[in-house]
Amino acid sequence: MGAGPGDADLLTLRAAHLLAVADVVVHDRLVGASVLELIAPCALRIDVGKTPGLSSSQTDINDLLIELATHYQIVVRLKGGDPFVFGRGGEEAIALSARGIDVHVVPGISSAFAAPLLAGIPVTHRGVAHGVCVVTATAEGGRPVDFERLANPDITLVVLMGVARRGDIAEQLRRGGLDAATPVAVVQSAASLEQSVVRGRLDELARFEVVSPAVIVVGPVAGLDLGLMEVVADLVGAS
Amino acid sequence: MGAGPGDADLLTLRAAHLLAVADVVVHDRLVGASVLELIAPCALRIDVGKTPGLSSSQTDINDLLIELATHYQIVVRLKGGDPFVFGRGGEEAIALSARGIDVHVVPGISSAFAAPLLAGIPVTHRGVAHGVCVVTATAEGGRPVDFERLANPDITLVVLMGVARRGDIAEQLRRGGLDAATPVAVVQSAASLEQSVVRGRLDELARFEVVSPAVIVVGPVAGLDLGLMEVVADLVGAS
Repeated sequence: MGAGPGDADLLTLRAAHLLAVADVVVHDRLVGASVLELIAPCALRIDVGKTPGLSSSQTDINDLLIELATHYQIVVRLKGGDPFVFGRGGEEAIALSARGIDVHVVPGISSAFAAPLLAGIPVTHRGVAHGVCVVTATAEGGRPVDFERLANPDITLVVLMGVARRGDIAEQLRRGGLDAATPVAVVQSAASLEQSVVRGRLDELARFEVVSPAVIVVGPVAGLDLGLMEVVADLVGAS
Repeated sequence: MGAGPGDADLLTLRAAHLLAVADVVVHDRLVGASVLELIAPCALRIDVGKTPGLSSSQTDINDLLIELATHYQIVVRLKGGDPFVFGRGGEEAIALSARGIDVHVVPGISSAFAAPLLAGIPVTHRGVAHGVCVVTATAEGGRPVDFERLANPDITLVVLMGVARRGDIAEQLRRGGLDAATPVAVVQSAASLEQSVVRGRLDELARFEVVSPAVIVVGPVAGLDLGLMEVVADLVGAS
């Protein structure tokens, strides 16, 4: 199940209902505190980011979920964002289904789209960007991400977990043909009270003073001014 | 505000709350009936898909929103999916902000991610797809979408509103280097009781018997079997 970008207000109705009735909730470190408050007090909670020996191994997490599913009625596996967008939800679903366990998948709002939105940036905009591509900076268990190939002035690029490699990403995108002046925005701690946005040009990205967790948005949409900035801060603060 | 893929259960808590307190709701034809049921009975509802002379012109819709915002306290502009992912939300926000009207943007679950998920397809999967690119078949007010350039075996391609042009899309992707046997899935009427999925290969896409609204998923993830198919049907039926 997806927990959305952080704020409990951005959970789906289905997710909020399931948190209230679950016997067990197994969650990641990135899931927001306000979301965890919706779990029934009597439910068992397991933070796999804090359980020794678990966080590093997907196999251990799969085994834990299988074990829990054989002892409890409703086990919720809660992930930040959406479980099928860089959430490894597919791997866990395969492991559970193979054991004959019923698996339901509940979508969540991915920070790939929500972080730009909450910073006032539409990932598509008529005449400016006719598509959006979402990647992480380092592909796990596969070929490295070829950013040169992803350089496309018509398609907004959203990079998750890319802060540490931002200099290299910018260089590859330049080599792929993106203009040095292409607008870039980095949205830090989206959907939280600490949310902040740094804007600039692609050739400045390496020097941006930013920290994780952050979402990097590259493309002309990052330079649009929708006149929403104060309103966004207010919206985050009010929830 | 985003209404999500269709089912009211997939609205955010924030969206459900705002529908209940709005004075006016201006919505598109694609917003699901169960979502519209959450609007307060006393609220004014305007379906811009059904109002003569309005549906064809974005300027008319902008003017209507400006007019409403000067007469009512809370005006909700409700869009299927997410307002900033092919929703023209950015254009409406700019038009309203320019008149000094306070604009808040509320994300929704985009069918670009939810339609594959509800069909049991993770758009990213470790070692299979390390990113996802989302486009519509025909870019409005800009250069046509260059599908040849988007052919990338490592990145899942999601095409919205592409049923009519599916033959041409497949041909361009083949020319761009995608294998004829690349798995393809078409998810029709996602998140509704009529949801159905057709699967096959890229070189068969032109002959798929499918109708709009549908989301086309191209890439190895479309060939994964998570063992969820019955469960997905059940989940849709239960909500």
